[in-house]
Amino acid sequence: MIGMVIIAHGRLASESKQAIEHVMGELPLLAAIDVINSDASDHLYDEMSTVIKQCDTGSGVLVFVDMFGGTPCNIALGSLGDHACEVISGFSLPSLIKAATLRKSSRNLAEIAAQSIQAGHQYMRQLSEDTKKGLRL
Amino acid sequence: MIGMVIIAHGRLASESKQAIEHVMGELPLLAAIDVINSDASDHLYDEMSTVIKQCDTGSGVLVFVDMFGGTPCNIALGSLGDHACEVISGFSLPSLIKAATLRKSSRNLAEIAAQSIQAGHQYMRQLSEDTKKGLRL
Repeated sequence: MIGMVIIAHGRLASESKQAIEHVMGELPLLAAIDVINSDASDHLYDEMSTVIKQCDTGSGVLVFVDMFGGTPCNIALGSLGDHACEVISGFSLPSLIKAATLRKSSRNLAEIAAQSIQAGHQYMRQLSEDTKKGLRL
Repeated sequence: MIGMVIIAHGRLASESKQAIEHVMGELPLLAAIDVINSDASDHLYDEMSTVIKQCDTGSGVLVFVDMFGGTPCNIALGSLGDHACEVISGFSLPSLIKAATLRKSSRNLAEIAAQSIQAGHQYMRQLSEDTKKGLRL
């Protein structure tokens, strides 16, 4: 199975992992790295490299970073090594859930990355007045 | 100034608020509601209504929910009252930062919501091999 690693500012990564597992139940090969203090990130390169290695069982790893160009993104890109990885920046909960769902039935890393992003785009939207009213309790 | 309220599973909302403020510094009229236990959400409707009221200084409020149809989304939609609100589902960190930036200079709620989503789409992407190599340390 394709692995998934989330890395983000603060505890955004571990909270995102928990939110996915709240929806889908506990998941294998899903890891989160929290970048609490951007200035003290040296050891996080080692931690990220280790986690990517652990999550790569031969099918590669999807790496999710919260924001392009931020410290978590730089740590991710500096830790990919020789592993087959697709890196997705600017993740959302729906994009993560889509990836976690698709990797059960597909081993095509690039395809899952593309579909994860597509779902993230599709489900990031402004709710219409009708939708707002319809869902109100 | 337009207010912003984030509501999400676990501590995703408060961690997102912290991440925005890590990037932009402390912000006024920005609130987070954490939905820790979906089953015990009754009091959260009151809390959400109060927070929306506090964040609406006459220009309206942007409400960000992590996932359409989830408990946080339902709580948000049940708490809008008569306030001018735009609700955005499936947020990402870049979408939040864009909204927090734009509300400094604009009071057009629908326009900021649309541009926040546009930025969220634009910055949720698969990094190319060249980008990955170029950013590696």
